[in-house]
Amino acid sequence: MMRFALFGAGRAGTIHANNIAAHPAAELGYIFDVDQAAAQRLAARLGARCPQRQEEVWQADDVDAVLIASTTDTHADLLRKAMRAGKPTYCEKPIDLDIDKVSAVVVEASAYDVSVFVGFRRRFASEFQQMRRRIQEGAVGRVESVRIVARDFEPAALAYLERSGGLLRDKMVHYFDLVPWIVSERPAEVYATGSCLIDPANVPAGDVDTAVVLLRFPSGALCTIENARRSVYGCDDRIEVFGSEGLLQSSPAPSHPLVHFTRTGIVQGGFSQSYSEESFANALDAFIRAVGSGAAVSPSLQDGYHAQLIAEAAVESLRINRPVQLQREP
Amino acid sequence: MMRFALFGAGRAGTIHANNIAAHPAAELGYIFDVDQAAAQRLAARLGARCPQRQEEVWQADDVDAVLIASTTDTHADLLRKAMRAGKPTYCEKPIDLDIDKVSAVVVEASAYDVSVFVGFRRRFASEFQQMRRRIQEGAVGRVESVRIVARDFEPAALAYLERSGGLLRDKMVHYFDLVPWIVSERPAEVYATGSCLIDPANVPAGDVDTAVVLLRFPSGALCTIENARRSVYGCDDRIEVFGSEGLLQSSPAPSHPLVHFTRTGIVQGGFSQSYSEESFANALDAFIRAVGSGAAVSPSLQDGYHAQLIAEAAVESLRINRPVQLQREP
Amino acid sequence: MMRFALFGAGRAGTIHANNIAAHPAAELGYIFDVDQAAAQRLAARLGARCPQRQEEVWQADDVDAVLIASTTDTHADLLRKAMRAGKPTYCEKPIDLDIDKVSAVVVEASAYDVSVFVGFRRRFASEFQQMRRRIQEGAVGRVESVRIVARDFEPAALAYLERSGGLLRDKMVHYFDLVPWIVSERPAEVYATGSCLIDPANVPAGDVDTAVVLLRFPSGALCTIENARRSVYGCDDRIEVFGSEGLLQSSPAPSHPLVHFTRTGIVQGGFSQSYSEESFANALDAFIRAVGSGAAVSPSLQDGYHAQLIAEAAVESLRINRPVQLQREP
Amino acid sequence: MMRFALFGAGRAGTIHANNIAAHPAAELGYIFDVDQAAAQRLAARLGARCPQRQEEVWQADDVDAVLIASTTDTHADLLRKAMRAGKPTYCEKPIDLDIDKVSAVVVEASAYDVSVFVGFRRRFASEFQQMRRRIQEGAVGRVESVRIVARDFEPAALAYLERSGGLLRDKMVHYFDLVPWIVSERPAEVYATGSCLIDPANVPAGDVDTAVVLLRFPSGALCTIENARRSVYGCDDRIEVFGSEGLLQSSPAPSHPLVHFTRTGIVQGGFSQSYSEESFANALDAFIRAVGSGAAVSPSLQDGYHAQLIAEAAVESLRINRPVQLQREP
Repeated sequence: MMRFALFGAGRAGTIHANNIAAHPAAELGYIFDVDQAAAQRLAARLGARCPQRQEEVWQADDVDAVLIASTTDTHADLLRKAMRAGKPTYCEKPIDLDIDKVSAVVVEASAYDVSVFVGFRRRFASEFQQMRRRIQEGAVGRVESVRIVARDFEPAALAYLERSGGLLRDKMVHYFDLVPWIVSERPAEVYATGSCLIDPANVPAGDVDTAVVLLRFPSGALCTIENARRSVYGCDDRIEVFGSEGLLQSSPAPSHPLVHFTRTGIVQGGFSQSYSEESFANALDAFIRAVGSGAAVSPSLQDGYHAQLIAEAAVESLRINRPVQLQREP
Repeated sequence: MMRFALFGAGRAGTIHANNIAAHPAAELGYIFDVDQAAAQRLAARLGARCPQRQEEVWQADDVDAVLIASTTDTHADLLRKAMRAGKPTYCEKPIDLDIDKVSAVVVEASAYDVSVFVGFRRRFASEFQQMRRRIQEGAVGRVESVRIVARDFEPAALAYLERSGGLLRDKMVHYFDLVPWIVSERPAEVYATGSCLIDPANVPAGDVDTAVVLLRFPSGALCTIENARRSVYGCDDRIEVFGSEGLLQSSPAPSHPLVHFTRTGIVQGGFSQSYSEESFANALDAFIRAVGSGAAVSPSLQDGYHAQLIAEAAVESLRINRPVQLQREP
Repeated sequence: MMRFALFGAGRAGTIHANNIAAHPAAELGYIFDVDQAAAQRLAARLGARCPQRQEEVWQADDVDAVLIASTTDTHADLLRKAMRAGKPTYCEKPIDLDIDKVSAVVVEASAYDVSVFVGFRRRFASEFQQMRRRIQEGAVGRVESVRIVARDFEPAALAYLERSGGLLRDKMVHYFDLVPWIVSERPAEVYATGSCLIDPANVPAGDVDTAVVLLRFPSGALCTIENARRSVYGCDDRIEVFGSEGLLQSSPAPSHPLVHFTRTGIVQGGFSQSYSEESFANALDAFIRAVGSGAAVSPSLQDGYHAQLIAEAAVESLRINRPVQLQREP
Repeated sequence: MMRFALFGAGRAGTIHANNIAAHPAAELGYIFDVDQAAAQRLAARLGARCPQRQEEVWQADDVDAVLIASTTDTHADLLRKAMRAGKPTYCEKPIDLDIDKVSAVVVEASAYDVSVFVGFRRRFASEFQQMRRRIQEGAVGRVESVRIVARDFEPAALAYLERSGGLLRDKMVHYFDLVPWIVSERPAEVYATGSCLIDPANVPAGDVDTAVVLLRFPSGALCTIENARRSVYGCDDRIEVFGSEGLLQSSPAPSHPLVHFTRTGIVQGGFSQSYSEESFANALDAFIRAVGSGAAVSPSLQDGYHAQLIAEAAVESLRINRPVQLQREP
C-alpha cells in the first residue's frame, strides 16, 4: 500500500483524492489545504487525516508519497520539501510559472535521488498511448509532420486566465510535453503567433486566445499546433502524425452514438463540452506502478522542465515575432 | 462500328441515344418512336435516320444491333422481331409485365442464336462491380447474409406506378437480379410482406409502398431487402454482404463533400435526390464489348427472366402471406 | 437504503453484487448460491451475509428487495417466493424457458401488488434511451421501419447454447423487448427463418446460428431483425429506425479512436469483442429509483412475458416456416 | 460562339482543347505549339486550324478569345500579345516565374481594357465553391482560422520540379489564391518553413519537399498550410475553416465507396492517386460566361499577381527564417 499525503482540496485535488482512495495499491493518509474546511470535508468523506499545520505532514513517518495539487504558486516550495523529505512526488503542472524557479528546482533535484512525476496527464489518454506505441512500431514510417488542433468549448473566467500564465504556458504546454513524447524527439526551434479573436475583454494583458505554434525538429520534421479558447461544437482535440508510410489520426468521439438522417443532412453528435477525466486515474496509476517497481517515472521533472522551456520560448517568439532556437541540453 | 437501331425516344431512350452517339465503337443509325416528333428531334440532333414505319428499321441492312427502350408493353414484340432478324439486342427491363409472355419469349429465343441483353443496369454501378469481384476473391469468406435497403427520394406519380407492375416488379426486381449475381447463387425461396404507409392515395390497388422481402439460398444464406417509395434524406441504397470472414458495405456518397461542425451537431450532406445515370453508359459499353468479342452477354435474357420469376413469386407471397418456393430450373 | 438479497453468485450475480455495493442508495444484505463457496467469496469481499439455507433469506426481516441472477431454471420459483414475501424483485431474463410456467407466474403475480422488474437491460444502454426519447419527440416522424442486425463476436460453448433455449429465445428476445419499447407499439405478427451456417457442430438440435425475424406492427410498420452467433470484426449491434421524417441510426463505437491512413486504405478500429456492461448498473439504478419512488417498474413482468411470447411465436414460425399471429392481449 | 485560339498542345493544352470543343458556347479555331506535330494531331482530331507561324494567329480576324497553356516561360509574352490584340485571355498559372516580369505585365495591362483570367482552377472545385458561399452566408460566423494540408501522391520527376519554381511557387501558390478568395480577406504577413524529408536527391537546390506556411490576416485570423510532395495513401487535400459559429471541413472522397469490416479493423478506400480534372472545365466555363456577359473575370490578372506576391514573400521567409510583411496595395 502506498500511503499518500495530498496537498490541495480544490477541483484537481478532489479528483486525485478519489482516485487514490479507489486505487487498490494506494491509500489516502493526509490532506492539506489552506482552505481547511475544504480539506476537512474531503478527508472526512475518504477517511484521511487532515492536519492543521503543513509541518505535521512532513513530520509524519507514515507517508510514502506526496501528491501536489494545490495552487500553482505553492508547487515549487512543496516539491522542494517533498524532495528533501525523500518522498516520491506527483506534482501537478506547471512546476512554477517562473521558469527560473523551475530551473532552480531542477538543479536542486539533481542532489536528491527522489522520483518526481509532473502531471502532464494527456500522455495517459488511451488514444495517445496507442498512438505513440504504433508510431514506435513503424505505423507511419519516419515521422515528417504532426498537426494538432485543440480548442476548449468555452473560455475560462478572466480571473482564472490571469493566473494561468497565458494560453501558451497553460494549454499549449500540454502539447509541448505530448508531442516530443509521441514522436521520440525534442524540437530545436519554435515559432508562435496569435490573436485575440474570441472576446478581447476576456484576455489577460499580453495574452492571446487563439494561437498557432510551429515546432521544428532536428530530423527536419515539422509540427503545427493550433489552440483556441472557444469552440461552439465542443472540445476539439485532434492530432495527426504523418510519415513516410502513412498517417495516424486521433479525433474526439461524438458526444452520443446516434446518427440522424434528415431533410437537410446527416447529423452526428458534436464533441463533448468537457474533457474526459480518465487520464487523471491513468496518470496516478502510472506513478504508483513506476515508484512501486523502482522504474523511472514519466513524465519526469526533467520532462516537465523541458515542456515549460518550450512554452517560454514560444512566449518569447510571440513577443518578438521571430522563431526562437531551443537549447539542446538545458 | 456497331450501328444501332433504337426504339423509344422517351427518357431512357434519350439517355441511350446520347450514350450510343458518344461511344467510340458505336453509332446511332435509326430511331423509331410512335411519338414521331420526339423521335425526329432526337434523330436530328444526333444525325440518325428516323423512319416513319417500323418495318423500315427491320428491312434496313445496315443495322448491327437493336436497343429497345420503348414502353414496356412493346418490349416483347420488338424483342421477337429483333431475334427473328438475328440482331443482338439490348432490351430495357422488364421484358414484359406478364410473366407468361416473358416465358414464351424465352422459349422462342432458344431457337435463335442471338445475344439478348436485359437492362438490369444496377450491375454496372462501379460499387457493385467491385463488391462482386471482392466477394469472389474471398473478402468476406463464405457468404451468410445480404442486407439491402433501397428507398427512392420521392414517389413517382400514381399514373406511372399503375403501369409499373408494382413495387416488387418494378423496383425490387433490380435486386432480384443484382443479389444472385453478386453472391453467385440463386435463391430457393422468397417471402414478402409490405404496407401502404407513405401515402395510401398514391398506391395502385393491390400494391404497397413499403416492402420487405426475404430470400433464402440453397447454401442457407439469407437475404433481406427492404424497399420504400420515399425517403426525405434522399435516395437511400445501401447493401451489405456478410460472411465468415467479414462484411462488405456499400453506401451512397453524401451529396456534397463538406462537413459542418455546429452547436447542435456535426452535419454531412444527405444522399442525392436522384439516381446516378452512370450505369446506363456502363451497361451499353458492356453490351457492345460482349457482342463485339463474341462473348456471352450479361445480364442475359435468361437472367432477366429469372429476376422476373423471383418478382412473381414475391408478389404471390405478398398475396398469400406465406413463403413461396422458387423452381430450380425454370 | 434499499437492502438487497441476491440469488446467484455467477457471472451476472457478481456484476449485480458489485453494482449494488457501489450504488449510493443500496446495500447488499444477503447472497445465496447453491455454489456456497462462490457465494461466500463474493459475500466476504462485499461485506454481505451468506446464509447456508435459502429459507434464512426469506425469513430475514431486513430485506427490502430481491435480485434473482441464479440459473434460469430457478427463476420462476424464486420469483414466486419473492412475490409471496412481498419483496420488490429484479429478475434476470428469461423468467423461465417454458412459456407455460411464465404464464402461470404472470397469473399468480396479478394476485399480489409487488413490483417485478425483468432484466432486459438493453433498454438501459444510453443509445437506446436516447433513440426512444428522440423518436417520441418526432425525430423520424411516423415510424415505418426498424432494421436491426446483432451479431456476437464468438459463439458460446455448445453446453451453454443447449441450456439457452436457442437463438430466438436467448438472443433475439432482447430485441422483442427493445423494439416495442422504442417504437411504442407491439407487433401483431412474426415470421422467422434461420440457418446453421457458422459451425453446425456447435448448434443444439433444432436450433440455428443465423436467423432473420420479421415483425409486423398494427400500424403497418415493419421490423427486420437479423442475429448471428459469430462476427469476426467484433460485436455488431446496429439499429435503425426509419420514418416519414428521416432515420435514426445507432452503431457500435470503434474499439479505439485512431484512424490509420495506409497504402491500402483508411483503417479504423473494429467493434469491441465483448458487450459493454454499462447497462447492468443503469438497469439496477432504474429499478431502485422506480421502487423507491413508488413508480411502476419497467420492463415489468408483463413486458418480460410479452417479449417471451414473441420469442415463442418466432420459434413456432421457424418450425412451420409460416408467419404466426400474435395475440393482442395475452 | 466564342472562337478560341489555343497556345500549347501538351497535357494542359489537350485538356483545354477537349473542353473548348465540348463547350456548347465555344469552338476551337486555332492551335499553336512549337511542337507542331503535337499541335497538328490535336487540331486534326478536333477540327481546328494549325498555323505554322504564331503570327497567323494574331492576324486572324476570327479569334474571339485566347487560351495560353504553353510552357511557363512563354506566358508573359503571349499574354502581352493577346492584350495588345484586345483578346480576352485565359492564361494558365503562373504568369511568369520572375515576379518582376509579372509586375511589368500587370502594369502594362492597366493600359488596356482586356479581360485576363489566370488559371487558378482550384476555385472551381465544387467543394470550394460551396465552402466560400456557405462562409459568406455565415455558416462559421466570423472566420478565425484556416487549416490546410495538401500532399501529392507521388513526387514529380526532378526535371519537372526544377522548372516549377519550387514547392511554394508551384503548389502552395494555389492556396495563396484560394484562401483569400474563400475568406474574402488578403493576408498581411507570411511565415514559411520547410524541410527535405522525402527524397533529398529529388529536390532542386534551395527547394524543400515539405513545407508549412503561416498566413496572418488583418482581422487577426490565422491560416496554416502544409504541403508535401508525397503521401502513400493518395492525394491528401483537406481544408477546414473555423470561426465563431463552427467549422466547415472539406476532405477528399475515398477512392471507392466500399467499407470492409475485417478481423483487424474497418477499412475504407484511400484517397485518389491523381487530382480530379473537373475544375479545368468549370474554370473554362466561368471564363466563357464572364466574358460573354461582360462581367469581370475571376481570378483576374490582379488576383494571379497577388497569389504570386504571397509566394515570393513565402520564398523570402523560408530563406531568412523570419515572417515577411505583405504590401497592402501592390
